[in-house]
Amino acid sequence: MDVGTVYLVGAGPGDPELLTRKAWRLLLAADVVVYDALISEALFAELPDSVQRIYAGKRGYCVGSTVQDSINELLVKLARDGRQVVRLKGGDPTLFGRGGEEAEFLARHGVPFQFVPGVTSASGAAAAANIPLTHRDIAQAVTFLTGHYDPDSPECTHDWSALAKIGPLVIYMGMRHLGKILARLCDAGLDPTTPAMLIERATLPEMRIVEATAATLAGCAIASKIQAPAIVFVGAAVECRKLWAELHSVASVRPHV
Amino acid sequence: MDVGTVYLVGAGPGDPELLTRKAWRLLLAADVVVYDALISEALFAELPDSVQRIYAGKRGYCVGSTVQDSINELLVKLARDGRQVVRLKGGDPTLFGRGGEEAEFLARHGVPFQFVPGVTSASGAAAAANIPLTHRDIAQAVTFLTGHYDPDSPECTHDWSALAKIGPLVIYMGMRHLGKILARLCDAGLDPTTPAMLIERATLPEMRIVEATAATLAGCAIASKIQAPAIVFVGAAVECRKLWAELHSVASVRPHV
Repeated sequence: MDVGTVYLVGAGPGDPELLTRKAWRLLLAADVVVYDALISEALFAELPDSVQRIYAGKRGYCVGSTVQDSINELLVKLARDGRQVVRLKGGDPTLFGRGGEEAEFLARHGVPFQFVPGVTSASGAAAAANIPLTHRDIAQAVTFLTGHYDPDSPECTHDWSALAKIGPLVIYMGMRHLGKILARLCDAGLDPTTPAMLIERATLPEMRIVEATAATLAGCAIASKIQAPAIVFVGAAVECRKLWAELHSVASVRPHV
Repeated sequence: MDVGTVYLVGAGPGDPELLTRKAWRLLLAADVVVYDALISEALFAELPDSVQRIYAGKRGYCVGSTVQDSINELLVKLARDGRQVVRLKGGDPTLFGRGGEEAEFLARHGVPFQFVPGVTSASGAAAAANIPLTHRDIAQAVTFLTGHYDPDSPECTHDWSALAKIGPLVIYMGMRHLGKILARLCDAGLDPTTPAMLIERATLPEMRIVEATAATLAGCAIASKIQAPAIVFVGAAVECRKLWAELHSVASVRPHV
């Protein structure tokens, strides 16, 4: 029996229409889909019943290596059973998705794999919030960082003073440690009045946006009871949202639907 | 007559299958598409003749403000003529795509617009080259920067020493000044033996990859006659390509087709 291929596929930021055409073709042709907690239920409603679905969900704070190990082993087993597997991951599989670990495990076990890129959450959230990630005269670089690790823990390797200097930041998985992360950045030289924004469930109908500053965002997030998944932007481009809405009537800037 | 909407749509990294399903729906429903030099011809072959196409191409080194101004004015004119406009841009419209400038111009002129995110070139190129952008124990952040400005010019605002410290870098539009950019990074403290990789026309059939180090990549690019569009990765994750191919037979790691 031929070994199946595992496609490590990005599902994009949430809205099922933001999957790529290639991801959709592979889903329709798959024998089985192994999917994350971040995958929208609306997506599965469109998928034929013939495609088997296996939930391998885990949310940021309970990712044990055991959980990841069992996902890795499941992917190898399914492929060795001759099945065509889509491993569907929120966002882009090469960016904070542990796609690299899964690819490495597959390679070690002789299973063919292929990355299929997706729209990363930063792009989805920026589009949905009507802001640019980079803007001429404001930003010639943008840094995406994970907020998964406690800044006090030795696992966290961020160079806060370099991050504070580098320009706009996008923080993935930053909800749990948001207060500490922003405090570290401000201690390291980031202007505490820098505009900052938080986008909960970006691109989905229930999306919420909180606008504040680097100094105040974490408190506002608690007050608004913002939950993961959410993405955080820190930098001047955040102000475009207000500017563009003022330039034009808010009503005519269409919501992202 | 109602003013039309301008959709600022990301076309993804090159392969027409890497457009999102939403981008494709909007293209099929559009009256007119205003597109960039980076858009693949294969994409247009699939589009019905009823959709008017207007080329607004410009390549990195001849982007005059005149050119951008005339694109901005064209978008406003088309929308005021009551047409539904797709402004199709390579990659993601919020990231180094001057999408922010176009959005601002539209807002100033009372034209409704909407960003539709796309797969950015970094994600497409990483997937196509079989490397992760971030990888546990290697990278907790990744920085995307534009290489458009001459490092010697006052327009270039990069903080080289922060960039050299921050971890993996992805350089967009970096071909013209690649030698100077990498030299600045190495002078600012980047280890010159850091793995570096260049991907020309990522995700397209004619894709080429050059692997070297921060010190040697620019010379290798000249020797290989690499042309824009190309994307540059600097950082340890680049080595996953070799590692995964060694772990497994190269033949079984399927090419990105």
